[in-house]
Amino acid sequence: MRSFASDNNSGVHPDVLAAMQAANAGHCVGYGEDPWTARAIDLLHRHFGDHVAAYFVFLGTAANVLGLSAVCRQYHSVICAETAHINVDECGSPERFGGFKTLTIPPEHGKIAPGGVRPLLHGFGFVHHSQPRVISITQCTELGTVYTPDEVRALADLAHEHGMLLHMDGARLCNAAASLDLDMAALTRDCGVDVLSFGGTKNGMMYGEAVIFFDPALAHDFVYIRKQGMQLASKMRYVGAQFEALLGGGLWLDNARHANAMAARLAEGVRRVPGVEITRPVQTNAVFARMTRRAIEALQERYFFYVWDENLPEVRWMTSYDTTEGDVDAFVRDLQECAGL
Amino acid sequence: MRSFASDNNSGVHPDVLAAMQAANAGHCVGYGEDPWTARAIDLLHRHFGDHVAAYFVFLGTAANVLGLSAVCRQYHSVICAETAHINVDECGSPERFGGFKTLTIPPEHGKIAPGGVRPLLHGFGFVHHSQPRVISITQCTELGTVYTPDEVRALADLAHEHGMLLHMDGARLCNAAASLDLDMAALTRDCGVDVLSFGGTKNGMMYGEAVIFFDPALAHDFVYIRKQGMQLASKMRYVGAQFEALLGGGLWLDNARHANAMAARLAEGVRRVPGVEITRPVQTNAVFARMTRRAIEALQERYFFYVWDENLPEVRWMTSYDTTEGDVDAFVRDLQECAGL
Amino acid sequence: MRSFASDNNSGVHPDVLAAMQAANAGHCVGYGEDPWTARAIDLLHRHFGDHVAAYFVFLGTAANVLGLSAVCRQYHSVICAETAHINVDECGSPERFGGFKTLTIPPEHGKIAPGGVRPLLHGFGFVHHSQPRVISITQCTELGTVYTPDEVRALADLAHEHGMLLHMDGARLCNAAASLDLDMAALTRDCGVDVLSFGGTKNGMMYGEAVIFFDPALAHDFVYIRKQGMQLASKMRYVGAQFEALLGGGLWLDNARHANAMAARLAEGVRRVPGVEITRPVQTNAVFARMTRRAIEALQERYFFYVWDENLPEVRWMTSYDTTEGDVDAFVRDLQECAGL
Amino acid sequence: MRSFASDNNSGVHPDVLAAMQAANAGHCVGYGEDPWTARAIDLLHRHFGDHVAAYFVFLGTAANVLGLSAVCRQYHSVICAETAHINVDECGSPERFGGFKTLTIPPEHGKIAPGGVRPLLHGFGFVHHSQPRVISITQCTELGTVYTPDEVRALADLAHEHGMLLHMDGARLCNAAASLDLDMAALTRDCGVDVLSFGGTKNGMMYGEAVIFFDPALAHDFVYIRKQGMQLASKMRYVGAQFEALLGGGLWLDNARHANAMAARLAEGVRRVPGVEITRPVQTNAVFARMTRRAIEALQERYFFYVWDENLPEVRWMTSYDTTEGDVDAFVRDLQECAGL
Repeated sequence: MRSFASDNNSGVHPDVLAAMQAANAGHCVGYGEDPWTARAIDLLHRHFGDHVAAYFVFLGTAANVLGLSAVCRQYHSVICAETAHINVDECGSPERFGGFKTLTIPPEHGKIAPGGVRPLLHGFGFVHHSQPRVISITQCTELGTVYTPDEVRALADLAHEHGMLLHMDGARLCNAAASLDLDMAALTRDCGVDVLSFGGTKNGMMYGEAVIFFDPALAHDFVYIRKQGMQLASKMRYVGAQFEALLGGGLWLDNARHANAMAARLAEGVRRVPGVEITRPVQTNAVFARMTRRAIEALQERYFFYVWDENLPEVRWMTSYDTTEGDVDAFVRDLQECAGL
Repeated sequence: MRSFASDNNSGVHPDVLAAMQAANAGHCVGYGEDPWTARAIDLLHRHFGDHVAAYFVFLGTAANVLGLSAVCRQYHSVICAETAHINVDECGSPERFGGFKTLTIPPEHGKIAPGGVRPLLHGFGFVHHSQPRVISITQCTELGTVYTPDEVRALADLAHEHGMLLHMDGARLCNAAASLDLDMAALTRDCGVDVLSFGGTKNGMMYGEAVIFFDPALAHDFVYIRKQGMQLASKMRYVGAQFEALLGGGLWLDNARHANAMAARLAEGVRRVPGVEITRPVQTNAVFARMTRRAIEALQERYFFYVWDENLPEVRWMTSYDTTEGDVDAFVRDLQECAGL
Repeated sequence: MRSFASDNNSGVHPDVLAAMQAANAGHCVGYGEDPWTARAIDLLHRHFGDHVAAYFVFLGTAANVLGLSAVCRQYHSVICAETAHINVDECGSPERFGGFKTLTIPPEHGKIAPGGVRPLLHGFGFVHHSQPRVISITQCTELGTVYTPDEVRALADLAHEHGMLLHMDGARLCNAAASLDLDMAALTRDCGVDVLSFGGTKNGMMYGEAVIFFDPALAHDFVYIRKQGMQLASKMRYVGAQFEALLGGGLWLDNARHANAMAARLAEGVRRVPGVEITRPVQTNAVFARMTRRAIEALQERYFFYVWDENLPEVRWMTSYDTTEGDVDAFVRDLQECAGL
Repeated sequence: MRSFASDNNSGVHPDVLAAMQAANAGHCVGYGEDPWTARAIDLLHRHFGDHVAAYFVFLGTAANVLGLSAVCRQYHSVICAETAHINVDECGSPERFGGFKTLTIPPEHGKIAPGGVRPLLHGFGFVHHSQPRVISITQCTELGTVYTPDEVRALADLAHEHGMLLHMDGARLCNAAASLDLDMAALTRDCGVDVLSFGGTKNGMMYGEAVIFFDPALAHDFVYIRKQGMQLASKMRYVGAQFEALLGGGLWLDNARHANAMAARLAEGVRRVPGVEITRPVQTNAVFARMTRRAIEALQERYFFYVWDENLPEVRWMTSYDTTEGDVDAFVRDLQECAGL
């Protein structure tokens, strides 16, 4: 039975797995000096721009922490939404490994805007104050919402006006691109993003994310930071092979579109269930909803999923590249039964 | 001319300086194994309890950072007011040296209460989440307000119920004690405080603060942390001598009472000046006020002081152990002239 | 063509890959709460003892850094051979992430002994001195040599007498076990090892290592350290599946034995080549040798491999689970041609 | 009674103390924006060069750790003598605060030379290897010996050839200058030193050291690092006043010359005592000697001093700016009595 708990509960897309098998051919040099990695980097150039500097790491937390560590010294601060993954889901790894300070602002459905950031842009040159260095946003957000290109550009402009950088946690960037029907460069490079965590695991890969610097000068010592961050894979070819499968054709987009479509179908079904209220705009592959505690408990006896906010209570359901219409419809039926309890 | 910018703009109280001179007698062993340090530690025992573990460091930021580092591992979080010194005035030293995460809540006039802390007390045992470990408060606060013993106790109880600790930044604890007319143990030990930064510099000393652990078990490896934190003075006797002068008789209280009285006098004067509004309860040695930008600029031509919040704008004026009635009255007269501009 | 550069230049053993494919079956909960991980942990219990605490990470550097970070505070020191992976091959990740100090001693063919360690066992309780906390050894060593159980036990005893711990970097523990014809518990638990990095990648896996604490109390907060160390895999089932394939039957031993046998065959061949001198005891899957620079360069035109020590010069050749007799014999023939140049 | 344990067992020179008292005049702005600090910085310019960037910190460990942290990122390494203060006397503070790796070489009487450093200058650009960044020497050394200008220059040249820097721990630089009869610029700037810890505490001050960058570009963010390193004194004028007293006239040199002369006298006396062997060249204010354990214990009943090396055993005796000829002669007499036991 497929889960609605998280898009990382799914397995690996068959095409990705096939590519990994195909890469299992004899010996090759380790640590990224292999042809699979080279081809995957080429594909990142094709998607994000010829001049980007791109590096593979194992997982999304590492992509965020190492990308930020490359551009921050320890007296810097990173400004993000209270709900940002770097703030609530990484167990303080940014502070421990990077040493910098995280400053948060209350988001609207996971999104921040220049008006919320501006009050934190002070104390430049004041030695008692962590120096603002990065604005970090998540695209799509932890709440499943998307930033329009204009919204991203506005934050990038604000950052650059202050000599700062814009970082994007793109663990689900493909879902955002599918939602906006834009290519990934249009959502990143063209909007002024400086550092990107580009996710593969939640879109059908087994493991592997990329850190992308749109100005390669920012990456001048990243290889050492990656090694120190315990993210330099010896058999990196298998990461390269996965990204090649994802990005070589349309798989990245097909997977994301499908997951988004299943969330839309789920939202449509949920809206028809009395006693359940959708709480966030459904723009990608997540549906957030409120219902009674009793209904939540009943449904959790049938499905594992997370209560997002115990106080409301609010729950999160996510769809994946392999969620089927049947899965969704069965879930809605179960929800109907539980919601009435 | 005496400043109203900060209580660290004053010099050293003559009795403290005399004690330092008296300590300048021949050779003694370094790093705290001297009789002055021993006597000062005895005095801390007398003021805070026989069983506390007490250590000297150079400055307040170090007292906070090292005290918290002793009780936190890097996956812990420390909850404090947005206005806390550890959050806004230490340039991220807690994150860099301690590695833990700082979580903030909006305070009321610098104070936090259980109701504000509770929403952050979740995620215990959830591996993605920094583990809440300490509630940190400042007494008196950065806004010059004081916590009553009951308010401190309520926060200590909340912390202890969750297996957490209460830390107090007491850079100006003497001023709080003077304001409440209570001894320092009544404000700390008796209210459940676990770790205290006890300040001397702002109350007439040249340099030197103490870190006090009410349960000595919490301090079992603090001597190494202090050394690593670059706070182990070789000629520590001069720190000991200063604390001996401050705590041996009533100097700590006289100094604090005087500073508080001067702030009260200042507040009284300010209240009579049209166009100037006092914005915070005046409970210790700080007065916060709003006035026009033009008036601020005019006054800043005569006195150096800090604009606390550029947006309102709100300014901060502080009094010291050596502020005189004449200083205050002259300042009020100048204020009157400037406020009318 | 198969490489003699490193045992991580090989691919994934077919049985391991098949297990990964078999694990690609529908959805399951992430972050290690899946049946594959559970079964792999059970196998680690079977191999190392019922009560060990075992955790998966992505790679060997992480296993070392996180295992040591779990048992060291930042004022501790770790004593190891100058040639230890933690000292020369991890780009200072132990110092950066763990914060502790590494002290080195000159090894004999990669091995250290109590006589070399003892001079560093001083300064206990002396606050200026990093406190000795761990002796770390590599089994088999970076030079391909093995510690006998008695040798390991002697170091463990020395550590324990001083309230210290013994850490073993077992990236190639299987090769050591094969060499000594002992099971892995006999080489670790039974000799007093406290913390073990157990490697899978160099023995036929794609990625994945385990950190094993023989006293689970040492691991009481390891899950947070792993998360902070960016090593908590979301789709952990694929790590579990690999270890299950390796440890469920005899694959771990077959692979290691084969690699060792190929190195023995290689050494035998090399010994017959004039002008090439084997420099280290060949006990596992590595052969170190000296030859002229000209011969090295000629051979490197045909094969990629590392010069271990530029000064001598000394080279390293490694065999893998999939090195064939034909590979070895061809390599020796090539060597013969090059050595004569 | 004056101690021969360390030059930090002495008190504060009367002229320095008088300057501190004189600085205790009214209010002034904190954190170094005061005239005393300004004048002291001017004096550092006069002694070390007009263009140096100079900053005050509290103590020598901080000067070393922060100076190195300013020029190293965490994947860098610092090469020093095994006996270096940063390696053995700072409890791992460099590793904890700076994060970089310390590599050591066996010194000769505390000194290192290019021949010893060169074998560590490899692995540039190799991502697994901490990148060599700094050679650090102590002048005078922890063994009381001095580097000639040519010796310093040779190390600086070696560093610069490799794109590295030369750091000097000058906690006792004045003693070296007195020994060599050279000014301090001749020993630092003119020899190619890049970063200097310049000590005051061991030469008659109460507390306070300076970090000096000969290329100010290296210091571009040092003010934040100092704040994070908990070394930004609020009442900095008292540090400035001390340095002004030390450097304004000849006090720095008189104090150092006197201490050195007393060590020379002590050495002369010791040489006449049968059973005591001086083990190091006596070039500044330290005398190292071997004698029987029984003699050491007997003498330690009369004087507190450190056993430097328990194995030999070897002891260290130090003289200070206020050691008198009578002190020395009495000590030698006591030594005579004890050595005969």
